[in-house]
Amino acid sequence: MSTDPRHPRDRVDAAFHVYDTTLRDGAQQEGLNLSVADKLAIARQLDDLGVGYIEGGWPGANPKDTEFFRRARTELDLRHATLAAFGATRRAGVPAADDPLVAALRESGASVVTLVAKSHDRHVELALRTTLAENLAMVRDTVSHLRAEGQRVFLDAEHFFDGYRANRDYALEVLRTAAEAGAEVVALCDTNGGMLPSWIADVVDDVLSTGVRVGIHCHNDTGCAVANTLAAVDAGATHVQGTLNGYGERTGNADLVSVVANLELKLDRPVLPTGALREATRIAHAVAEVTNVPPASRQPYVGVSAFAHKAGLHASAIKVDPNLYQHLDPVRVGNDMRLLVSDMAGRASIHLKSRELGFDLTDSREDQDLVARVTARVKDLESRGFTFEAADASFELLLVEEVEGRRPSYFDVESWRVITDSRPGGEALSEATVKLHAGGARILTTGEGNGPVNALDHALREAIGQAYPEVAKFELIDYKVRILDQGHGTDAVTRVLIETTDGESSWVTVGVGANVIEASWGALVDGVTFGLRRHGEQPEQQPGALEPEAARG
Amino acid sequence: MSTDPRHPRDRVDAAFHVYDTTLRDGAQQEGLNLSVADKLAIARQLDDLGVGYIEGGWPGANPKDTEFFRRARTELDLRHATLAAFGATRRAGVPAADDPLVAALRESGASVVTLVAKSHDRHVELALRTTLAENLAMVRDTVSHLRAEGQRVFLDAEHFFDGYRANRDYALEVLRTAAEAGAEVVALCDTNGGMLPSWIADVVDDVLSTGVRVGIHCHNDTGCAVANTLAAVDAGATHVQGTLNGYGERTGNADLVSVVANLELKLDRPVLPTGALREATRIAHAVAEVTNVPPASRQPYVGVSAFAHKAGLHASAIKVDPNLYQHLDPVRVGNDMRLLVSDMAGRASIHLKSRELGFDLTDSREDQDLVARVTARVKDLESRGFTFEAADASFELLLVEEVEGRRPSYFDVESWRVITDSRPGGEALSEATVKLHAGGARILTTGEGNGPVNALDHALREAIGQAYPEVAKFELIDYKVRILDQGHGTDAVTRVLIETTDGESSWVTVGVGANVIEASWGALVDGVTFGLRRHGEQPEQQPGALEPEAARG
Repeated sequence: MSTDPRHPRDRVDAAFHVYDTTLRDGAQQEGLNLSVADKLAIARQLDDLGVGYIEGGWPGANPKDTEFFRRARTELDLRHATLAAFGATRRAGVPAADDPLVAALRESGASVVTLVAKSHDRHVELALRTTLAENLAMVRDTVSHLRAEGQRVFLDAEHFFDGYRANRDYALEVLRTAAEAGAEVVALCDTNGGMLPSWIADVVDDVLSTGVRVGIHCHNDTGCAVANTLAAVDAGATHVQGTLNGYGERTGNADLVSVVANLELKLDRPVLPTGALREATRIAHAVAEVTNVPPASRQPYVGVSAFAHKAGLHASAIKVDPNLYQHLDPVRVGNDMRLLVSDMAGRASIHLKSRELGFDLTDSREDQDLVARVTARVKDLESRGFTFEAADASFELLLVEEVEGRRPSYFDVESWRVITDSRPGGEALSEATVKLHAGGARILTTGEGNGPVNALDHALREAIGQAYPEVAKFELIDYKVRILDQGHGTDAVTRVLIETTDGESSWVTVGVGANVIEASWGALVDGVTFGLRRHGEQPEQQPGALEPEAARG
Repeated sequence: MSTDPRHPRDRVDAAFHVYDTTLRDGAQQEGLNLSVADKLAIARQLDDLGVGYIEGGWPGANPKDTEFFRRARTELDLRHATLAAFGATRRAGVPAADDPLVAALRESGASVVTLVAKSHDRHVELALRTTLAENLAMVRDTVSHLRAEGQRVFLDAEHFFDGYRANRDYALEVLRTAAEAGAEVVALCDTNGGMLPSWIADVVDDVLSTGVRVGIHCHNDTGCAVANTLAAVDAGATHVQGTLNGYGERTGNADLVSVVANLELKLDRPVLPTGALREATRIAHAVAEVTNVPPASRQPYVGVSAFAHKAGLHASAIKVDPNLYQHLDPVRVGNDMRLLVSDMAGRASIHLKSRELGFDLTDSREDQDLVARVTARVKDLESRGFTFEAADASFELLLVEEVEGRRPSYFDVESWRVITDSRPGGEALSEATVKLHAGGARILTTGEGNGPVNALDHALREAIGQAYPEVAKFELIDYKVRILDQGHGTDAVTRVLIETTDGESSWVTVGVGANVIEASWGALVDGVTFGLRRHGEQPEQQPGALEPEAARG
């Protein structure tokens, strides 16, 4: 266990709970499949963010979750968060001590158990198929039992708002029963997600009059999950549940990043350890890597586009004062302001973008002409399908070409070819052959891969590597394809974005073509070229000259 | 022009404005590039939804937009919506009648002009570089001028909430000036997106006391755009602006679909023509096709996952009453409830899914065993990377295999191969060769395409088509690839989802493999197989028999 002094953690923790259920409710998202290793990795990231509670899963009901809690005991060293196990109240008619799922909660080793209980009378009758009285007993017995066994207990009042509307007295009775039996918090769950912010506040107000400590758990079915959560806090809730990046079933849970960012930065309410919020962007993206769900570029606060400015009319004003166009400084959540180069951009955007990339342009006549030429080329290429908004490295190569009068070139390609063959009883194999000139020699290489682009990448770097060994460190880490309809029915064009890394930094290049492999090849060539330039290599003096050296293979 | 009686339209229109700015503010989204044809197509969809106003763009400032308004006069026949042109107040020091951009607004032919004006004193000084008094004159003159020329005018009060905080008196003065000069509505714009719902209500309340008609225009930077919009309406605003699917710069504008759905279905406020909301899902997806921005599956109301239920524990209850787990009936927005088959699903989910697909299973012993077998196979395949959540056709083939004892088979593949060659001075070409047995003959075909999968698809259908001519109608309309890390560092597996159409319906199949082309091939084969079965073809009696017929090619 960590040796951090417990006192500061208790102070934030006791006053306000930030409760993350990415690993349990978030995992219900369509298409999300987390291994135990994935869950442990995500838990570490959540701990970095400084959430107070991490709901790890449902041990007993989900074998993977039983395993997660088992491994967490030795493999998870949390500095901030407390692990919570989720589970149900005992079965109707079975004593809590005899219920195997309740036993699994005890045995999980989690210091907190969050029990989900029905608080909607119709659900008790139709889903649980028991009586209203027995449901109350299930709540009472399970909470008391776990308390007696030494665990802390929170209650998730499932379908609370619908239950409150159907039968207010019963819904409140469920909460009171849990609190009296020892539950520290009763989290009101808008399980079907149908609430609006103004409705939430009235209900929370009423619930608080019973004396319980209130939590809130919202879903985004009306597009108001974050606002609903804030409305509850405004009305007196001191425990917020959500998931990172808003993962969850249907439309997802409340995005915990937006919730805590709004609480800290808009409502002046510190709910995370000091400085933790600055890690939010890094953590949101790191978790997306593990879940393999592509991050939403327009996600509030931490999305890649969250502080990206496009319109040319803004760019001239942003030069004066960024805060004229931003609601807060992105550095507070670890994000950056970005200026997008596009056909809606004017010269002001291109000028700023160039400076962002380190080209120290002035207002001289020469530099103004340069910016005008670059702007014209960008518009022309964009009309052919290129985009530079997400491909800074390709944009930089374009700039260099205009500044130096020639595009940097380290090799001259003669031809390439890639074949994928089925193999009877086995897996297909992709094999590429590349012929090019570099370092004064003609080089022929063959590369294999798990697909045509992968094979070409290997063959290309094998070939270039014979003249420039450092490309062995380059690696393709992301690949995006989009088919662009220039006009429906006419020739579609494919745009490929490739991200390359050398182990220290990464860069994105773009390629366009009618053939997807052709487009990929263009992005690959730019990717290697940019990498070599970044590594300080001098371009070849005579790009294109055919050297009659013996072929190297 | 349409001959619909004007009276009903006026009634909805006058009381409450639904104002769509997809084509202007929405177009600021990173990566979004709309042609004039795209804009016209989207405008028709917006009109189908029944919005009151379509802001078509900024004529004069954007050549594409000038063209849009020109073509709209003859090519756009709107039944519900009124076209609005967006633009700026006259330049400082220039009479409105002499300002070429103001002239462009007059000449657009739009019956409504929405003028954006600075309402934040700092913006007037730093961005416009003029005096507070001149800014008011710019507002007054431009509004009066356009009114005198016969156009209706709305005002967009840019950066209003920040301006109101910095200098309340001036902000309100801008609004009053516009209203007195003839602006029908003053839309308060949260341009930087930093507002929260509770703050919005107070400001709207104050503004209404000046007697102007208030509109609201929000962005999603705090994750509260929809809630902010509803808060403004709650406080008395009668004009809401937003974009379809929440398109827009940075984190986007308020999602107009969520706004109108909440107003109509949650707040009992009809704001669209009767029955229009039922088209929301179709329209949201149709517009996404045009913008080429992949629709967000978890989008409220209209997302593919918005009413998709995963957890096994819910499935047994959903069988009893779907409304136990949905906040409203998805048919009201044209969406469907879906049950997801996954490894978190129990037999209840598989049972329900099978019935959804038309397999009339009972509670007989035999059918229970069938469901158990299918469940086991689904879990096994999912652990190897398959997903059936989005691939109903592959799931159905699996069901058929268990029900009939054998997977339907119409052809027996011998081998396939695909080559992509670069061509000097031109575009690469992909060419595939397929050898298989069908209809008692051995068939060899070659197909070309704009990529390996496209070429294989052509070759495969060319081959199958010689035995089953109807496959000529089949077409690949969507293709998704995802690399799955089974555990970091070990062999990655690729999963491919393919959507095929026969012109009447479409179906999705899945393929998995270490090689992306292998995975694609699997999905293609399933796609053709499913299509043939749907067309009523009888599977071959002896799948796998090698017929010594002469090769056809």
